[in-house]
Amino acid sequence: MQPAKSQPMLYQDLAERLARSLDAGAFRAGDRLPSVRQLARRESVSIATAVAAYRELEDRRLVEARPKRGYFVSPRRPVLPEPGAWKRPAPRPSAVGVNRLIMEILGAARDPAVVPLAAACPSGSLMVPAHLCGRAAATRLRRDPGLATSYRMGNGYEPLRRSIAQLAFAYGCLLEPGEIVVTNGCMEALTLALRALVRPGDTVAIESPTYFSVLQILESLGARVLELPTNPRTGISVEALELATRRPGAVRALVLTPNFSNPLGSLMPDLAKRQVVSLMADRGIPIVEDDVYGELHFGDVRPRPMKSWDRTGNVILCSSFTKILAPGLRVGWMSPGRFGEEIALLKFTTSVTTAEMAQATVAELLSSGGFLRHVRRLRSVFATQVRRVTESIERHFPAGCKVTRPSGGFVLWIELPRAVSAMDLFWKALEHGVSIAPGVMFSPSGGYAHHIRISCGNVHDENVERAIGILGKLATGMAVGPGGPRTISATASGR
Amino acid sequence: MQPAKSQPMLYQDLAERLARSLDAGAFRAGDRLPSVRQLARRESVSIATAVAAYRELEDRRLVEARPKRGYFVSPRRPVLPEPGAWKRPAPRPSAVGVNRLIMEILGAARDPAVVPLAAACPSGSLMVPAHLCGRAAATRLRRDPGLATSYRMGNGYEPLRRSIAQLAFAYGCLLEPGEIVVTNGCMEALTLALRALVRPGDTVAIESPTYFSVLQILESLGARVLELPTNPRTGISVEALELATRRPGAVRALVLTPNFSNPLGSLMPDLAKRQVVSLMADRGIPIVEDDVYGELHFGDVRPRPMKSWDRTGNVILCSSFTKILAPGLRVGWMSPGRFGEEIALLKFTTSVTTAEMAQATVAELLSSGGFLRHVRRLRSVFATQVRRVTESIERHFPAGCKVTRPSGGFVLWIELPRAVSAMDLFWKALEHGVSIAPGVMFSPSGGYAHHIRISCGNVHDENVERAIGILGKLATGMAVGPGGPRTISATASGR
Repeated sequence: MQPAKSQPMLYQDLAERLARSLDAGAFRAGDRLPSVRQLARRESVSIATAVAAYRELEDRRLVEARPKRGYFVSPRRPVLPEPGAWKRPAPRPSAVGVNRLIMEILGAARDPAVVPLAAACPSGSLMVPAHLCGRAAATRLRRDPGLATSYRMGNGYEPLRRSIAQLAFAYGCLLEPGEIVVTNGCMEALTLALRALVRPGDTVAIESPTYFSVLQILESLGARVLELPTNPRTGISVEALELATRRPGAVRALVLTPNFSNPLGSLMPDLAKRQVVSLMADRGIPIVEDDVYGELHFGDVRPRPMKSWDRTGNVILCSSFTKILAPGLRVGWMSPGRFGEEIALLKFTTSVTTAEMAQATVAELLSSGGFLRHVRRLRSVFATQVRRVTESIERHFPAGCKVTRPSGGFVLWIELPRAVSAMDLFWKALEHGVSIAPGVMFSPSGGYAHHIRISCGNVHDENVERAIGILGKLATGMAVGPGGPRTISATASGR
Repeated sequence: MQPAKSQPMLYQDLAERLARSLDAGAFRAGDRLPSVRQLARRESVSIATAVAAYRELEDRRLVEARPKRGYFVSPRRPVLPEPGAWKRPAPRPSAVGVNRLIMEILGAARDPAVVPLAAACPSGSLMVPAHLCGRAAATRLRRDPGLATSYRMGNGYEPLRRSIAQLAFAYGCLLEPGEIVVTNGCMEALTLALRALVRPGDTVAIESPTYFSVLQILESLGARVLELPTNPRTGISVEALELATRRPGAVRALVLTPNFSNPLGSLMPDLAKRQVVSLMADRGIPIVEDDVYGELHFGDVRPRPMKSWDRTGNVILCSSFTKILAPGLRVGWMSPGRFGEEIALLKFTTSVTTAEMAQATVAELLSSGGFLRHVRRLRSVFATQVRRVTESIERHFPAGCKVTRPSGGFVLWIELPRAVSAMDLFWKALEHGVSIAPGVMFSPSGGYAHHIRISCGNVHDENVERAIGILGKLATGMAVGPGGPRTISATASGR
């Protein structure tokens, strides 16, 4: 496989785009593809380039040539199966005690020499280049020199709030600019939302597995959590949620990521989203919706957030530009619904306001027209990287593994053979210069001891390829190695 | 009086500096000043300029000429007396319920057409100019293009933490760069510190009056507060603190601003600082020290923070560059002492990290050499503005007022005649286009109903002069007006 570091050739680029539309389900196994001539015309490339692109896809066994008939979509090769929904959601709310373990894992994985498959961070080279950020900042500073030198109270920079409202409108979500609160990334939005809602001892319903920092925030608030069974394709079980919230007061709030959850990559169907919005409104249980991955859909349509069906202000929508524009700017936002007053107050006493210069930089990037193009390109890159990492896992990982097939975002969730302890694999991989996120980070109840999350946010080069090879080899050794099957250890944090 | 908006003449500049050294106590009433010739030589100005400077000071009645003998410091004119320490500190811890009132007051005062004497914010024109911030950002971006585009985990940008450690070393405070956590302004530092220490129901000892956002944070944490009597010159009563903390567990933490407290402007003597550090260490009560005004001393020596005597890690030092460089960058910092682990965790789950570009901008400004010159100039400007506002108050306010004489910072605390309700004055002044901070914001127990805080952070021009005239007229009317003395109303928040 060609390393993607250098500029890809024209045919490779075309092959990637074709592979992506296959991934996105535009064609099914056995479907006939456009002829070489049609393809060349449609894409304005030479016949030779079109042929080379199809040959590349043949090499990857995505398409097959049938003599005199043209190219057809290959029957999907046997790939690793998907993991099922977690079978043992904790039957009772549990206290959260994962903070130290998570900080230790994050700390250990921070070595810049390590191939960072642990963090859900895109490669810097995929983000808006620094000089464009600098230029955007300079443009706004010229227009409004007070940006850096004055306190601007209130919930955010007006032009940015208008741009956010316009973006949201495009995916069916009507937000007033005035109700949007700009935050220091999505993390601050989630923290403010949960601080507004949750008191010590309250129970909060969450996806299982869930984004580990949600657990960290809930732990710092002294909350208990109720893990809902979550399907890797369709998200939380609405039935389980219905049952868990029957008794008034049993659940204080629901936190979830309906669009490409982390780590599962699940996408809730619209019907399920609407059911949850309606159920929670009826029962007076606020929803904290994390939509930070919503823009990163591989299909054609940007999925709607739950907030778009919220008529009672019961949904607090949290999002950010950190995964798509520039993490270093730390600009996120939230739409606090009926909790506007509490959130404004907490925002004020937490950080007064978000740095105006960073807000103005993002506003300029959004209004400059290149934004939509940039995000479109990013979606395509992530779709490709997710596919490549999946293929690489299929090549290297031992039999018995399962891997998710997300339709957005850039993380994969892998179920290893039961004999493989993810914490052991984490430490061994680190010795070999590779970081992964072990499953125990994503649940407070010690589950997912043989699961790992892998980020596909890195430019897929020979380092990533090698890193996955190392992981596969280690996992294979642990699954069948001389030590035989190992005990599952969810508490290797003492190491 | 000359408006200070235009570039001051050379003689005015010299007069200001002389006035400042008089303010700072370099000379006492009756002392002989340098001769015109000596002054001209020392300052490298013409004789005419030296004469003009002395004439300016004569006009202001700060110096007087004695024929053939030269210039002498005038006997200090009768000025308004200083307020005493608050006589009725709440004998018992009280719940905090000021948040809505404070947000309402801040919201009402946010109209840009209003002369902003309420907010403790310097005029933007006194801060580092926007183009220098932009240039600083660009310089660092060129050197490190990853600044905007990558997640940098950890507690902050290394070069900035080193610069902060060097600054702190210069005022006697030994900090390791590695222990410094960069935050979104001082507010985030205070919030993280208090979230790390305080659980609902805990009692926290505070200055009285105290910075209102400390009350807001404590209210959001469900804490109770114990108000300590605080002297406008020397800060909290160490005796009262000693008594209040005798019973183990009675007080969970102490929050204070030893250097130029807000709103009193008090400066604790070093001896008192050391006593408090030692007492709290002995009793295991952590100190949250807000040093955001420490650089803004009018005297020659930068006062030391309590942290400089902390040997046990019991002091959490919080500070910021927002009052001295550029508020819009929102870069503050803290040194968390023995609470490093908890603070790092809370910082991570609150905002992951502080925007790298803003951190790098501040680092560049600090290392560029102009920083010390900028802060020196700022100190001089604030000293002058505090004096001018004081003089203006003396001219316009009714008899019976008292006003603080801070030796640093840029706020004044005014005790009005008992007949004047500060809340009534707040609303009336707002109708006249002037905002002030009414005393009830600074205490949870309804005290200070006839006190106000006035910011001297604004460039002292005719608007400020006129605003103080309006306040004086309103206060005079309320003190002796047709309605006669009024009942003191600390709860005008319903209006």
